[in-house]
Amino acid sequence: MREKIINTSIALFGERGFREASIQDITRELGVTKGTFYYYFTNKEDVLMHIHLRFIEGLLEQQEAILQDAKLTEREKLYANVKMIISNIKSGAQSARVFFREMRHLSEKHTSQVLPKRDEFQRNLQHIIQTGINNGEFRSDLRADMLSFAVLGVSNWSYFWYEPDGEVTEDELTDLYMKMILEGIQL
Amino acid sequence: MREKIINTSIALFGERGFREASIQDITRELGVTKGTFYYYFTNKEDVLMHIHLRFIEGLLEQQEAILQDAKLTEREKLYANVKMIISNIKSGAQSARVFFREMRHLSEKHTSQVLPKRDEFQRNLQHIIQTGINNGEFRSDLRADMLSFAVLGVSNWSYFWYEPDGEVTEDELTDLYMKMILEGIQL
Repeated sequence: MREKIINTSIALFGERGFREASIQDITRELGVTKGTFYYYFTNKEDVLMHIHLRFIEGLLEQQEAILQDAKLTEREKLYANVKMIISNIKSGAQSARVFFREMRHLSEKHTSQVLPKRDEFQRNLQHIIQTGINNGEFRSDLRADMLSFAVLGVSNWSYFWYEPDGEVTEDELTDLYMKMILEGIQL
Repeated sequence: MREKIINTSIALFGERGFREASIQDITRELGVTKGTFYYYFTNKEDVLMHIHLRFIEGLLEQQEAILQDAKLTEREKLYANVKMIISNIKSGAQSARVFFREMRHLSEKHTSQVLPKRDEFQRNLQHIIQTGINNGEFRSDLRADMLSFAVLGVSNWSYFWYEPDGEVTEDELTDLYMKMILEGIQL
């Protein structure tokens, strides 16, 4: 039931927004009482925090697996990161919408749990790029910190326009992004 | 007064969110009556629509000037577009926040006024890239439509992290982004 409440909340917060969707909307959708809701969560913001944590922890876990794969070059790790973000759109578009839009509705206590994980995700990307600069895979005249934000921008922006079931496959999109990032678009 | 109401609303919607900031908050901040507010705007959503329109029309106007500058190569037009978006962060960070986060609070009628302009901005970028592909400035094996979203992602994401008054200047950030986009980061 805990899972079902979270999933229904993701759908409702994503469609209508956190403020607009009430606990009553959530329980009505599930056909359960408010008592059931309060058995699992303190309040609506408590659910929001779990959505945020689950979203970023899921991404961090996948990123960790990439980072620890000793067979991969830094170039391949970067590719795998972009691919992973794009692949998550299909399953997590609504979660992402909630994550990017509703952060300010988290209490300060909860924000301080989520923000460090979001920063960790960016710093891991930066680490891949910096390692690639150090070992000669990437050029050394560009700053790894700002490049990591550029790569995040390219990848995360897809959440706002890319349709995974459309004409362009996830692999094609990842290939195109990585060609731009690695080789540039200049002839 | 109309301007003042819009500017105060941008600040309040940006800080607290559209739903959270009331008309009373806006008039209290300005020290005017609600009557004054209703003299200029029908309701809160009406103000939101004007914030959206002003934001995207301002960007389109600057983009138009770049597009019509016959002296510029497509590479230079692309550079000027990225620079323009980054330069707008300083003056328009709160507007951008409202633009990206509060779109769903627009009525259907108003959304249909704003969305075509947002699409026009992306299509103009795509046009620059496609022209550059056609005239041999850019490589021809990458799709201009998806590249335009990649460039938008890199640039727009800056709104979420870049501090114009920090250590990195707008020119440095634009240079770094454009080096990645044009030349790639691979050694």
